[in-house]
Amino acid sequence: MRIYADNAATTKMSNNAINAMLPYMREVYGNPSSLYEIGQKAKKALEDARRRAAVVLNCDAKEIYFTSGGSEADNQAIISAARIGEKKGNKHIISTSFEHHAVLHTLKKLEKEGFEIELLDVHSNGVISARQVKDAIREDTALVTIMYANNEIGTVQPIKEIGTVCREKNVLFHTDAVQAIGHISVDIDRDNIDMLSLSAHKFHGPKGVGILYAKKGILLTNIIEGGAQERGKRAGTENLPGIVSMVAALEDATKDLDGYAAKLLPLRDKLIAGLDSIPYSELNGDRDNRLPGTVNFCFEGIVGESLILLLDNKGISASSGSACASGSLDPSHVLLAIGRPYEVAHGSLRLSLSEDVTEEEIDYMIQSVKEVVEYLRNMSPFWRDLINGKRPHVFEE
Amino acid sequence: MRIYADNAATTKMSNNAINAMLPYMREVYGNPSSLYEIGQKAKKALEDARRRAAVVLNCDAKEIYFTSGGSEADNQAIISAARIGEKKGNKHIISTSFEHHAVLHTLKKLEKEGFEIELLDVHSNGVISARQVKDAIREDTALVTIMYANNEIGTVQPIKEIGTVCREKNVLFHTDAVQAIGHISVDIDRDNIDMLSLSAHKFHGPKGVGILYAKKGILLTNIIEGGAQERGKRAGTENLPGIVSMVAALEDATKDLDGYAAKLLPLRDKLIAGLDSIPYSELNGDRDNRLPGTVNFCFEGIVGESLILLLDNKGISASSGSACASGSLDPSHVLLAIGRPYEVAHGSLRLSLSEDVTEEEIDYMIQSVKEVVEYLRNMSPFWRDLINGKRPHVFEE
Repeated sequence: MRIYADNAATTKMSNNAINAMLPYMREVYGNPSSLYEIGQKAKKALEDARRRAAVVLNCDAKEIYFTSGGSEADNQAIISAARIGEKKGNKHIISTSFEHHAVLHTLKKLEKEGFEIELLDVHSNGVISARQVKDAIREDTALVTIMYANNEIGTVQPIKEIGTVCREKNVLFHTDAVQAIGHISVDIDRDNIDMLSLSAHKFHGPKGVGILYAKKGILLTNIIEGGAQERGKRAGTENLPGIVSMVAALEDATKDLDGYAAKLLPLRDKLIAGLDSIPYSELNGDRDNRLPGTVNFCFEGIVGESLILLLDNKGISASSGSACASGSLDPSHVLLAIGRPYEVAHGSLRLSLSEDVTEEEIDYMIQSVKEVVEYLRNMSPFWRDLINGKRPHVFEE
Repeated sequence: MRIYADNAATTKMSNNAINAMLPYMREVYGNPSSLYEIGQKAKKALEDARRRAAVVLNCDAKEIYFTSGGSEADNQAIISAARIGEKKGNKHIISTSFEHHAVLHTLKKLEKEGFEIELLDVHSNGVISARQVKDAIREDTALVTIMYANNEIGTVQPIKEIGTVCREKNVLFHTDAVQAIGHISVDIDRDNIDMLSLSAHKFHGPKGVGILYAKKGILLTNIIEGGAQERGKRAGTENLPGIVSMVAALEDATKDLDGYAAKLLPLRDKLIAGLDSIPYSELNGDRDNRLPGTVNFCFEGIVGESLILLLDNKGISASSGSACASGSLDPSHVLLAIGRPYEVAHGSLRLSLSEDVTEEEIDYMIQSVKEVVEYLRNMSPFWRDLINGKRPHVFEE
């Protein structure tokens, strides 16, 4: 059995998304900035894609900027808000300690420039409250940037409530919605979002393309200067095949989110229950307030990397934390943020399901993880110390 | 007859490039940063692509950074050199007045930060000399950035000689080689290049992917922060399908550059001779020292946009200057840089050929341009003034 259970890292492109792309590589290959027919056809397809994306996200087409992906969109949103803020003398930015590195590293850069970065503590259930945001907002707050759903543990933030707080306080609000779009309902208008980032390859679209939404009136700062593409805010010949493909995938992924949840939730919860039955293990993040497909566990006495490699031998593609941090020896900043101690933050397993997953596969995953955890624990001196009482347990049995 | 003669704006993807991409969308879709098999296969393909690109460019694989295209690569190269320079107190940058806007606008941004930007005058034949560069280099010069071949008029710069001058003076040298790669011989080692930008869609590869080459020891500044991809210098999940496709196209486009030139040069020169026979017209840029496929003419009394639209009616896709500036009412900064007066800088036509062009198509283009120029001149009050002697001619008959 081969199961790809790392859909939070990237997804397999749908046939629809691939097929949507091909005509723009083979036939309508013109540069959308060109005046002749094949250029104008490309331009029309570009603007159609923009309008269709705007319908899905519930915003205006003019508020959609196509980027090379989620990281670029996150960078541009945050830099833009910082530039707007500093003109008014506002250099305080609120975020959380478990954002994606595209956000955290950009904030670190701004901190070196003299911005004051306030990272809110994340509750042990992996959720931030709107109240925390409200209490942190100051007169000189330039931006609140909080992810819609966490990429490692899958917990969903109260974005609508946070958006409302920011709107009331007249502070710009950006959300990294890379993990949320196509998995749960996101509505820019309903959620009071000023800026949003998304990435196509997280919902069966192509790699290398994403969207930055920025509400009308927000002056974006270019991070790529050059031609006048994207209304002068993002230079470079438009990746039209990627853009059209992304929008096809976006429409597919969002057209029946209720059906998606109805199918995945019982399977996800079965997986959680199964892994929970392993002694000295614990689910990371809230049991219910999470993405329909993301499950993340810590196991005492285990190193995540070994777990991943042995599961791979059993045909299961899974990850320990985010793909971006793979190969790093540091424990997950997300697990530390929700209060996991150092020694278990190394032993995490993320299984992120696609809609195609079957109950048989869920059973196989539970059985495989049990076997692998037992096998690794049997070899671990650290585990022996735990069961011999030489070290304290972190979790209950 | 339909002729796509705007290959300097973008090219049609080759079947090879499309076919190279598909397996990485359908099968090896893993995230290259993942530990399991499908991720490691993706990682291997990524590093194979990097090695193959390095062979073509004659550099080390570790010096290749994959980007979202030429504009991003230009931005990152220039910003990086500026940051390296300013640490040593060097804030003087040398470039030319006819660079691509990805270069010029980035330089403008640095100028606002306090950098001194010196744009060398371009000779009327569209070429800069190494001597000009040598004379301009100062103790505090942080960077020389000069394009390999101009995107509008196709003239080729003495990059090897400029590289030698920079190496002797120990000044960083970047070249925007977006128009050159795949069309003429570019060799990073031979040409003494420290940094180079290229874009896949200019040589029958995909849109949305490019390369920044940076010589070992050059500390790049991120313009996209986040994950540790591209050795920490360019965040975001790698666009592996695009990267593999780009490298396939790069290999194809560079494997027989002599054959490419041997086929195109006589056709290009026939096109030049044919358009030259139109009264009051003139080739822009040196007759010989130019890309094998690029021809750019000015016609007195003509507005470029009308020319493009009427040629489109005749089935010819051409442009007036670069695609990035299409729709703009400003005359081309490139034509102004080579000394064309304002009134003819509006009347330019760029025909950029692909290897597939036939002699029959060349004849058809010459005939069509002649007809369209005559038609437009007959309607133009400006032209009537010229032939009635009420205005002076710019060109000889």
